[in-house]
Amino acid sequence: MNEVKVGIIGATGYGGLELIRFLHNHPEVKEIDLFTSSEEGTIFSSKFGHLLSIHDAPLNKIEEEKLSGFDVVFTSTPSGVTSKLLPPLVGVGPKLIDLSGDYRLKDLASYEKWYKKTPAPHSIVQESVYGLTEWNEKNIQSAGLIANPGCYPTAVLLSVLPLIKERLIDPNYLIIDAKSGVSGAGNKPSQTTHYSEMNENFSIYKVNEHQHIPEIEQAIKMFANTETTITFNTHLVPMTRGILATSYAPVLPGVTNKQLNDCLEETYKNHPFVRLVQDVSSIGTNRVKGSNYCDIYVKVDERTNRATIVGVIDNLVKGAAGQAIQNMNVQFSLPQTLGLDVVPLFI
Amino acid sequence: MNEVKVGIIGATGYGGLELIRFLHNHPEVKEIDLFTSSEEGTIFSSKFGHLLSIHDAPLNKIEEEKLSGFDVVFTSTPSGVTSKLLPPLVGVGPKLIDLSGDYRLKDLASYEKWYKKTPAPHSIVQESVYGLTEWNEKNIQSAGLIANPGCYPTAVLLSVLPLIKERLIDPNYLIIDAKSGVSGAGNKPSQTTHYSEMNENFSIYKVNEHQHIPEIEQAIKMFANTETTITFNTHLVPMTRGILATSYAPVLPGVTNKQLNDCLEETYKNHPFVRLVQDVSSIGTNRVKGSNYCDIYVKVDERTNRATIVGVIDNLVKGAAGQAIQNMNVQFSLPQTLGLDVVPLFI
Amino acid sequence: MNEVKVGIIGATGYGGLELIRFLHNHPEVKEIDLFTSSEEGTIFSSKFGHLLSIHDAPLNKIEEEKLSGFDVVFTSTPSGVTSKLLPPLVGVGPKLIDLSGDYRLKDLASYEKWYKKTPAPHSIVQESVYGLTEWNEKNIQSAGLIANPGCYPTAVLLSVLPLIKERLIDPNYLIIDAKSGVSGAGNKPSQTTHYSEMNENFSIYKVNEHQHIPEIEQAIKMFANTETTITFNTHLVPMTRGILATSYAPVLPGVTNKQLNDCLEETYKNHPFVRLVQDVSSIGTNRVKGSNYCDIYVKVDERTNRATIVGVIDNLVKGAAGQAIQNMNVQFSLPQTLGLDVVPLFI
Amino acid sequence: MNEVKVGIIGATGYGGLELIRFLHNHPEVKEIDLFTSSEEGTIFSSKFGHLLSIHDAPLNKIEEEKLSGFDVVFTSTPSGVTSKLLPPLVGVGPKLIDLSGDYRLKDLASYEKWYKKTPAPHSIVQESVYGLTEWNEKNIQSAGLIANPGCYPTAVLLSVLPLIKERLIDPNYLIIDAKSGVSGAGNKPSQTTHYSEMNENFSIYKVNEHQHIPEIEQAIKMFANTETTITFNTHLVPMTRGILATSYAPVLPGVTNKQLNDCLEETYKNHPFVRLVQDVSSIGTNRVKGSNYCDIYVKVDERTNRATIVGVIDNLVKGAAGQAIQNMNVQFSLPQTLGLDVVPLFI
Repeated sequence: MNEVKVGIIGATGYGGLELIRFLHNHPEVKEIDLFTSSEEGTIFSSKFGHLLSIHDAPLNKIEEEKLSGFDVVFTSTPSGVTSKLLPPLVGVGPKLIDLSGDYRLKDLASYEKWYKKTPAPHSIVQESVYGLTEWNEKNIQSAGLIANPGCYPTAVLLSVLPLIKERLIDPNYLIIDAKSGVSGAGNKPSQTTHYSEMNENFSIYKVNEHQHIPEIEQAIKMFANTETTITFNTHLVPMTRGILATSYAPVLPGVTNKQLNDCLEETYKNHPFVRLVQDVSSIGTNRVKGSNYCDIYVKVDERTNRATIVGVIDNLVKGAAGQAIQNMNVQFSLPQTLGLDVVPLFI
Repeated sequence: MNEVKVGIIGATGYGGLELIRFLHNHPEVKEIDLFTSSEEGTIFSSKFGHLLSIHDAPLNKIEEEKLSGFDVVFTSTPSGVTSKLLPPLVGVGPKLIDLSGDYRLKDLASYEKWYKKTPAPHSIVQESVYGLTEWNEKNIQSAGLIANPGCYPTAVLLSVLPLIKERLIDPNYLIIDAKSGVSGAGNKPSQTTHYSEMNENFSIYKVNEHQHIPEIEQAIKMFANTETTITFNTHLVPMTRGILATSYAPVLPGVTNKQLNDCLEETYKNHPFVRLVQDVSSIGTNRVKGSNYCDIYVKVDERTNRATIVGVIDNLVKGAAGQAIQNMNVQFSLPQTLGLDVVPLFI
Repeated sequence: MNEVKVGIIGATGYGGLELIRFLHNHPEVKEIDLFTSSEEGTIFSSKFGHLLSIHDAPLNKIEEEKLSGFDVVFTSTPSGVTSKLLPPLVGVGPKLIDLSGDYRLKDLASYEKWYKKTPAPHSIVQESVYGLTEWNEKNIQSAGLIANPGCYPTAVLLSVLPLIKERLIDPNYLIIDAKSGVSGAGNKPSQTTHYSEMNENFSIYKVNEHQHIPEIEQAIKMFANTETTITFNTHLVPMTRGILATSYAPVLPGVTNKQLNDCLEETYKNHPFVRLVQDVSSIGTNRVKGSNYCDIYVKVDERTNRATIVGVIDNLVKGAAGQAIQNMNVQFSLPQTLGLDVVPLFI
Repeated sequence: MNEVKVGIIGATGYGGLELIRFLHNHPEVKEIDLFTSSEEGTIFSSKFGHLLSIHDAPLNKIEEEKLSGFDVVFTSTPSGVTSKLLPPLVGVGPKLIDLSGDYRLKDLASYEKWYKKTPAPHSIVQESVYGLTEWNEKNIQSAGLIANPGCYPTAVLLSVLPLIKERLIDPNYLIIDAKSGVSGAGNKPSQTTHYSEMNENFSIYKVNEHQHIPEIEQAIKMFANTETTITFNTHLVPMTRGILATSYAPVLPGVTNKQLNDCLEETYKNHPFVRLVQDVSSIGTNRVKGSNYCDIYVKVDERTNRATIVGVIDNLVKGAAGQAIQNMNVQFSLPQTLGLDVVPLFI
């Protein structure tokens, strides 16, 4: 194949900005156009100074006919937007990759309950493909509409799915304690994310109520064929990027630390973005910062026969824009790493 | 009673600096002298500029006879120091309050195993009193040597002890996911705590191996009469102060969210430093920053019948120097809040 | 005198919160009541969780007659508010201490130009006293209305005034490069102060346009009897508290480094909150964090015969609430340090 | 030409890590080998976890004959190392690019005075070429040894050189107030850069004594043919990356704001990494984070006829590794942007 023409709806959000950052260096992308519902005509770099001389074109109005001419359209909007925006674009031309939560939950009642929004049309939700790349490559390849996974689910699922699928840990006592940098809260100012109140403040939020709970449970069923009800809590870390999710589960009788590590290694040996880490001192959000890697660490406590399973990603990359581009690569039969093979910043 | 003469050994550490910060405004303290093993004669404020005009006296050499003249001696040293330093001072005059871990574990074999150091003398360890103020006031009152609790155990125990003691949660599945600001790692520079590598980095450390595990288990037995083996992990947050510990446990059959809250309220109604918080958006380390408060929040998940129990402290205050002074107040029959009644900084 | 009854208007701002923090421990303050224009009835600690059990009273409506019963009323509001709010309260009872900029500039045209607001009534502005405590104690003592200095001017003036007054530096080439933590921008969320965009970002703002420029020039004239036009720029530092202002000026012929230091030492020898620092490694915002100190450092460059003059304060304390309370102490003939003698946090 | 074989000495420093980050994606680089004086044999990714699966090769011993086989050798070591290390490699094969300060100052006495080290051999220093790419392209093209500029000088020189050269500002009153993120202090832990003491602390250091002073003065003479003695001070910002240098100088009689902007625009119109910014709200270190851009802003104050000139870079990229690779591109007649055309992270 050759050059890909890309449209981005919701480019002013952090997911959108990261799409631009990576697509700018993607060798198969020839054009990137940005769309917006409200700031039509604004020179993009006048709003985002870091893009001066990089993207000086104006924002375009969202118009169906214009969008239908693209090879792929990414949508990176708040929940409740693409449920209405995308249906007319399905099947008319561009591959669609939705970074929002609107097409992730197959059970529409569940969507309504957790998102408190009207769900997208049933048939489109059912046809859409959940874009957890390492676990769903085949379906992604032929997908017209991809529901790109949430940031937390990506970190959690990549680290726990192999162990549940291989029946090495007990999914009935799965407790997930997740922590995220503040960029996960998006670009809209609020009291919570006001610098002086967020800085030097570690907090917990949405106790038992995060909308990523049903997404994780659905994926465990989908990929590990296991029904379970998880405990999942989320915390805000005073830093910009990164998710570290610590999961706890009993290991099944006789299962060893080595078996867990072997299982993870075997699962991901051909997946360049998932790295199994042996030395806990190498586990940390800055080891993946700015990159599409997911680092995983697992350790069994012999006192309790419980496993600690750690998944680490950059929430804006593997947890959003990076995985979306990885999925685009799969859709277009390109190497998964194309445009994404960057070294984490570390410092 | 009247004026208290205070000696501090290990004043150059962060625990020591916080002792000075609070004792400076303690109405019953008339004199504070600082002792050191290696920097005798150094003008303290030349080393710590923030104390210029506040503590310009030189550091003193540690000498038994000099120390015996004080009313109280705080020791805030790395583990393995006071096990040797304090025995000669026991019973000769000053009340002793040890902020290190050397006298916390009654089981000397356990100390050796977790601290990898030679334990303090058996008889002195047995006589020492564990200084979790809200739970051990009577014994603290008459104690000659107080083993001041660790920072993590303080946050964890204050939040889970009432619920275990009243048999509201199941201690056999207690999973504790704790997070701490970097000051908990002390004042000694290292690669891990080097600004450029700690900043913007959330990490996990000492998986299943933290020396506070046996301390928590011992206290659960001591105060809630319950033997249990806990899962306990620790994380480093890119901020200076604060601990937030998230604990997970099944509630026992029929137990409600209200019962958990009532139990906590009842337990702490006469304890001014423990605050039960109803609104999760008010839970965060900056709500206690610089103060001796411990904030607690609890919530039952009706999907899983598991409780999320959150304890929040300033690790250097309620988790170290503040609780030590609170214990001093008890020993000297002073109001617990004396010198400690300060408003958290928040910003 | 005895107990002081305090009213605070604008308690929900950071200046207001700091007033509460210090007044809570002020031995001569018996009562603190909070007033608001818009959130009447709100339990204050439900809005500011760190004040739980400390200030659980509701916010009061601003009413002239109620306010006239207080001994002192602090106003900590955005500019343009007290110009209208305070006139009816002048002379009717309470001492008034205004933390906003509305009464600082004696030249009303200048106020209009720099603040782009309607000025306060001429006569009241003229009668008000500029509250730079160390330089205006006499007038503050008898003042009915104090215009508390701005944060930047406090750091700048305390460090440069003695040198200008004693004709040691040339005020005609005074260049001031000031840096502030983000709390100086107040508590209102904005894109600039949104955590993800403020974190890890050092920036310059209001080039040549900061409203503190005329305030500094006026004070140099008032206290050093010198007319000058300064260059003054401001920067935002990704931290919450603190101002460090670096000023540059040629030293006058023959003037030595020692003379500058002697001048500063002589000026402030009886002023406990101003500290002259000799070792540059002790100069930094964390050395004054949370306290009312102003640290000053000066050094002449022999290559250029220019002096570097550094002033460091906590913008919310010596730059706002702390100095306001210091002024209250002067008004009530109390020791200046009463309620303010706290040790900086450092860490 | 075709593929370039690269050796890096000092890869464990932050400059070295950034070289690896960019060279990994450089289309003309085929091989990267790392050399060290002390950790021979260490698997690089075991020391730097972020490079797991990216650079798993061991560190090599520094050996002259091995190094002579490379096309280019970068040295990123503390000052005082390459003065001894590089002479044997000059002219024997690889192009040499030194990121340290050892070859920057042509006046060896000046090097000795400011660096307090023995200088490199006179002839080699004189032959080396100062690698300020935008100003010295011709000489860089044929250089065997490039002295890559310091981080501060890069930010300062790019912003002030055009204005001095075109006689628009008065170089005799040039005052430069520079601020840097902590990564500029390198990777070696110290008390100053210990997280708990650096966090939330803005400080000034090396007043009038920074070794970049003679480098800036030399370059002003070299490129703008002007002798001057500057005032230059440096500050540490609690963030990892970024330099913002604020320079102040009188504009010469009759010179307007527009002239300054036109001069900068004209100077850099064909230099893709230098961006002239018109809107001050777009000036900030996060606008260039992770990239090779230098953003410049200039504004004349009509009250004082002084210009404020701001230069912003990522100290590790345009201030070190990025400019070094830009110089390599010039040496190898490649487009300057090759491997460096990345979008700043912003968040």
